[in-house]
Amino acid sequence: MKAYLKHHEWQIIEERFNPHYNKISESVFSIGNGRMGQRANFEEEYSGETLQGSYVAGVYYPDKTRVGWWKNGYPEYFAKVLNAPSWIGIHVMIDNQKLDLAKCKVNNFKRVLDMKTGLLTRSFSATLPDGKEVRVVAERFCSMALSEVGAIRYTIMPVNFSGKGIVSLSVDADVANKDSNYDEKFWEEVNRQTEDGKAHVTVQTKKTKFHVCTAMRYFIEEAGKPIVGRINLEERDKYAGNVVQLDFNEGKEIVIVKYAAVLSSENHVKENMVSSCYAVLDRAVKNGFDSLLNDHAAVWGKKWKECDITIDGDVAAQQGIRFNIFQLTQTYTGEDARLNIGPKGFTGEKYGGSTYWDTEAYCLPFYLGTAKQHVARNLLVYRYKHLQKAIDNATKLGFKNGAALYPMVTINGEECHNEWEITFEEIHRNGAIAYAIYDYVRYTGDHDYLTSHGLEVLIGISRFWAQRVNWSAEKKQYVMLGVTGPNEYENNVNNNWYTNYLAVWSLRYTLECIRNIKSMTGSAYKNLVTSLQFDEESEGTKWNHIVSNMYFPEDQVRGVYLQQDGFLDKELLTVNDLKPEERPINQKWSWDRILRSCFIKQADVLQGLYFFEEQFDLETIRRNFDFYEPMTVHESSLSPCVHVILASMLGYEEKAYEMYLRTSRLDLDDYNNDTEDGCHITSMAGTWMSVVKGFGGLRVIDDKLHLKPFIPKQWKSYSFRIEFRNRVIKVTVYKNRTETFLEEGEPLEIMLAGESIWLEGERLSV
Amino acid sequence: MKAYLKHHEWQIIEERFNPHYNKISESVFSIGNGRMGQRANFEEEYSGETLQGSYVAGVYYPDKTRVGWWKNGYPEYFAKVLNAPSWIGIHVMIDNQKLDLAKCKVNNFKRVLDMKTGLLTRSFSATLPDGKEVRVVAERFCSMALSEVGAIRYTIMPVNFSGKGIVSLSVDADVANKDSNYDEKFWEEVNRQTEDGKAHVTVQTKKTKFHVCTAMRYFIEEAGKPIVGRINLEERDKYAGNVVQLDFNEGKEIVIVKYAAVLSSENHVKENMVSSCYAVLDRAVKNGFDSLLNDHAAVWGKKWKECDITIDGDVAAQQGIRFNIFQLTQTYTGEDARLNIGPKGFTGEKYGGSTYWDTEAYCLPFYLGTAKQHVARNLLVYRYKHLQKAIDNATKLGFKNGAALYPMVTINGEECHNEWEITFEEIHRNGAIAYAIYDYVRYTGDHDYLTSHGLEVLIGISRFWAQRVNWSAEKKQYVMLGVTGPNEYENNVNNNWYTNYLAVWSLRYTLECIRNIKSMTGSAYKNLVTSLQFDEESEGTKWNHIVSNMYFPEDQVRGVYLQQDGFLDKELLTVNDLKPEERPINQKWSWDRILRSCFIKQADVLQGLYFFEEQFDLETIRRNFDFYEPMTVHESSLSPCVHVILASMLGYEEKAYEMYLRTSRLDLDDYNNDTEDGCHITSMAGTWMSVVKGFGGLRVIDDKLHLKPFIPKQWKSYSFRIEFRNRVIKVTVYKNRTETFLEEGEPLEIMLAGESIWLEGERLSV
Repeated sequence: MKAYLKHHEWQIIEERFNPHYNKISESVFSIGNGRMGQRANFEEEYSGETLQGSYVAGVYYPDKTRVGWWKNGYPEYFAKVLNAPSWIGIHVMIDNQKLDLAKCKVNNFKRVLDMKTGLLTRSFSATLPDGKEVRVVAERFCSMALSEVGAIRYTIMPVNFSGKGIVSLSVDADVANKDSNYDEKFWEEVNRQTEDGKAHVTVQTKKTKFHVCTAMRYFIEEAGKPIVGRINLEERDKYAGNVVQLDFNEGKEIVIVKYAAVLSSENHVKENMVSSCYAVLDRAVKNGFDSLLNDHAAVWGKKWKECDITIDGDVAAQQGIRFNIFQLTQTYTGEDARLNIGPKGFTGEKYGGSTYWDTEAYCLPFYLGTAKQHVARNLLVYRYKHLQKAIDNATKLGFKNGAALYPMVTINGEECHNEWEITFEEIHRNGAIAYAIYDYVRYTGDHDYLTSHGLEVLIGISRFWAQRVNWSAEKKQYVMLGVTGPNEYENNVNNNWYTNYLAVWSLRYTLECIRNIKSMTGSAYKNLVTSLQFDEESEGTKWNHIVSNMYFPEDQVRGVYLQQDGFLDKELLTVNDLKPEERPINQKWSWDRILRSCFIKQADVLQGLYFFEEQFDLETIRRNFDFYEPMTVHESSLSPCVHVILASMLGYEEKAYEMYLRTSRLDLDDYNNDTEDGCHITSMAGTWMSVVKGFGGLRVIDDKLHLKPFIPKQWKSYSFRIEFRNRVIKVTVYKNRTETFLEEGEPLEIMLAGESIWLEGERLSV
Repeated sequence: MKAYLKHHEWQIIEERFNPHYNKISESVFSIGNGRMGQRANFEEEYSGETLQGSYVAGVYYPDKTRVGWWKNGYPEYFAKVLNAPSWIGIHVMIDNQKLDLAKCKVNNFKRVLDMKTGLLTRSFSATLPDGKEVRVVAERFCSMALSEVGAIRYTIMPVNFSGKGIVSLSVDADVANKDSNYDEKFWEEVNRQTEDGKAHVTVQTKKTKFHVCTAMRYFIEEAGKPIVGRINLEERDKYAGNVVQLDFNEGKEIVIVKYAAVLSSENHVKENMVSSCYAVLDRAVKNGFDSLLNDHAAVWGKKWKECDITIDGDVAAQQGIRFNIFQLTQTYTGEDARLNIGPKGFTGEKYGGSTYWDTEAYCLPFYLGTAKQHVARNLLVYRYKHLQKAIDNATKLGFKNGAALYPMVTINGEECHNEWEITFEEIHRNGAIAYAIYDYVRYTGDHDYLTSHGLEVLIGISRFWAQRVNWSAEKKQYVMLGVTGPNEYENNVNNNWYTNYLAVWSLRYTLECIRNIKSMTGSAYKNLVTSLQFDEESEGTKWNHIVSNMYFPEDQVRGVYLQQDGFLDKELLTVNDLKPEERPINQKWSWDRILRSCFIKQADVLQGLYFFEEQFDLETIRRNFDFYEPMTVHESSLSPCVHVILASMLGYEEKAYEMYLRTSRLDLDDYNNDTEDGCHITSMAGTWMSVVKGFGGLRVIDDKLHLKPFIPKQWKSYSFRIEFRNRVIKVTVYKNRTETFLEEGEPLEIMLAGESIWLEGERLSV
């Protein structure tokens, strides 16, 4: 844990230049707008430790997998979000010395990410090796209003000298992915050009042939007057820019404004990319920096109005939750059903920018609760569109008759990870995808989605489960062998309780949906039978038999469900038995030791109890929580939020708050010692859930919104807003009362702490 | 299965040029001498499918591992036997046309590997694109008498033309490994030189800095008279040679004799490598081709006298067993304790040329039975020398106090594979290394080895087992979690019966050896306590407790041991339930499907029953064999031999013979469709065991040699020779009798079919 950032309600603030923390800060201070984003790399050249990263949504490269020993059925490639052309470069030379913070004396360094307006500001004084000092202020944003536009205002003032300087302004597409499997560069040039004041480079990805055109224009002023320095044009492969010679005058600020436009062939015709790009760019230039920034900040203002959570009396917690909401919002806006949410968003390359089950299990509730219905629906449609590929994937693995196995990791519907224990065995993701349909319909009441899309997916998934289980002659029950549950600190286990439960639930829910459709709309059911060749006689019977005869590992003595067969053979220790220097165990212990230990990355069984709490009594949940929580090391960022929610439900307020702090400040305080790779974007949705479903106790039961809030004792009050069936409801929780307020939409009845109340627009206090 | 080679008692014969089978033949026709070896690549250039391969014993490269997702404790590198400088090149051009069999019309092609003399001969007629025809005979061997020398006699005759030709004779070190993880070349040049008639190149491996100097000289004659053509010297990086211009005269044979010397810094001082190399080369040249070949053949004659197995009445079986013995003999001579036996020997790169448990479990009995005692002892000493590295390896994985985990795959004592399920979990190899000590002492009676070396290894291994098990509060027994047994079609299983049994046996045997040493030689025991800090009080007590309280999975109903916990949850099918097109399943099924199926690559439990047959009654062995054999797909080359031995013991003669054919002709008939990567050298020792321990029923019990032969009904007779405690015993088995003959050494009592007989030098027939 590294607590080096200043606590502040609306801002992330770094007040000292610490090169050792630079990569962490580059992640934390990342900016984006759902269409593109970037790490908080410096505009100047920097020879110190850095992970350069700019990203464009939807553009990926199928990097050949790196596999030690090929096994049949392995995915051919590991999809990678691309480190995209960089438009931020403003390289400064003064008297032949590079302005490079790794080689200067740096004073008054400050980096501020203003979450209210989405503006990244960095300021510092730098003394060059020969004693010349400059003062720099760099402001940057990726426009939320014009999502293909970014802008920088870079102010540089010579403090103690006058002299000659050179400023290079470029578009640099000669970039590489750090995690390229074979040190290959993924981009090749299509075209480039530079002339006075502007430049562009169009590149395409190898193999996938995505085009990205990046153009820049810039303007330089001193004391409000344009400067026209001598310009040399600089071009090389995948790089174009201007080198401008300037006179620096002591005490006089030079202001450089650089505009960029980034267009991808996902949204534009390749043939017209260059002209389209300049059209977007010219529009930005015409607006000007301040106007662009205003428009950008206005969008943020609207977003915050929709999804802010306030916490009174705990600045660290307030900053934490806003940071999570900020990052989520700038990662995914939900307007494009081709896009999804990568584990690192636009803050790093790790996990390839691909879609995991995180989306369904963690992100969906956030978007259900904070955005209009179509946003969450788009996340479901994303999987619907990939159904055929999920069927193909299952077929490749030997399944038949329309069984669908969604990929564990994907960018286009195909499986693209490279570990058998993940791709072949973490089949629980199939259940999460089914669960998300249920969760969406439960929250929104949009039953039509089932008929139009959902049931098709559910049937594919259920067909998979029905083939994946086998009858154990020994147990005289169905079993599921060779799986890996969400607890990845176990691999290739038999009868993972969570997976078995999800499978049975999927089958039951699918059958229920089929029954409903059959009873309600005759033609829809007929279509089903025709197009999906669903055979109720044989398939339905088999599914029901599995539902009634599935095996679940349990410990009758302790009254708990067992993570998998043989779990009780382990030496049952608790996290308190671990020495501090042994943690995190995934960095300190060898893999085999982790696998045979009882320690849990994220608790399977508790995940299941969280999903299906209404199917268990509170004491069962308590026994399981009390059994598993002490063994859970939370080395998955997805883990703590589920514990917050369950602990809240069980009245374990201290534990809930402890876990909340861990999830909400995971990246700000670099809890898991890995934020330098990027922020844990998908788990940030878990932080939101921690407050709303955990502390706030939000549930939707039988089409009715339920709240059962408690307030951590460290807080004075907290509030959140909920989108629910065309209403916006604001909930404020105080020490001794809860206020609910219908901000938008028709009156409705909700349940607050078990009492029915009628929301009609006045502030209700209970 | 590809039955394209002609059956012959002493030769491997290919009578047709089939480019599709060329890589298989390159493997099968490989030649070597324990110091170096090579695939049967052509001397001429060949643009068709080929896997080029020359290998020098002990020279390796630590190639950076290729791992999809790094986990703590992973080995840094995957050791690779190197594709070494090639000295075979004799490239021929006639009128600007390359002699390249892929581009000629080829007639009368014949490739013969004469196993009696170790000579590879290839002959063919080739018609060039312009109609010119040449007749070529190429003879080649790696001298068993001078192990750093190779020689080629290449005879070429223009059949229907006279004209100009060019012959290039070179040393080519600009070679790469096909399985390089990152397409890197592993050699860099140290020096090179060429002058008229000779050339050399010295290269070193990157990182490991092994030097290999390869030099060649050649002589060209026509009608017995030397030809001095115009010579151009050709040099480039890592390549040196002569380009000789020749006149071809219709019907006149040109004979090129090329000699090569290959020296490595494993055996020579780097500074003098070039001069040493030419000294060896000059000695070879002085001898001349015929004399070198005679000396080489004479060594083979002696080897065959020692270890030949004859089979009368079954040419395919005869050829098979000789091929296995031939390849084993040219892979490992046992004179250098730094060397060991790679799974592919000198016939391919796969498995990196590293040492596996194959050596202890399969190869050791072959060398015990066919070579002088020091050869087998050298194999044990190899591991003894690696003990500290095995302790380091265990320490790295979290074990303490001198616990030793030998690597699953190694070339210098360090673990160097790259799959966690192999390196971390296939810990059964530790047991095989302990077993080999027991097996060696049992066979040779060399108890001193225990005091001098063996016990130290046994204690390190036992310390590992004692820490690797854990107490199950549930079972109230010790369990061993998270292992992979020899059946690699299961990964990360709990309580693998074979591993649990080996662990307990290791502990018991170590304790027994300690007791013996304590009772016999007081000072040896004291040394043990001092140097190894063995604490009988605490360690001995713990070990005994484990021995008495280990859990073994069993099926009480069927009366069989279970491969691991949960095995009975599987759908129990037999190999007969598989469709032919589904086999081999490792090429047709996805990995997850294999893992959760009941199908067995090689049967764990049967391996254990084979090792420890005296600890089980015959009916127990039978029940287990009957249970597991039908589920075993034998997709490990190490599998069938164990089944031959058990089937023989159980009187299942048909099954024994079926399995024998499979192992003995595995490569000749390319059973597993993978011989193109190289021959299955280590499993060849299993073929020998099949005959001697299987059909011959050889055992050593209480210092006495036992035989219990049967003869497959397809055979008239068979014979084998056995080295046993300074005797050589020849055994010939006929339909109705067995002849034993003491060829060397003092008289001794042996047991034949349960009867005691006294061998004194006369031929005994029973």
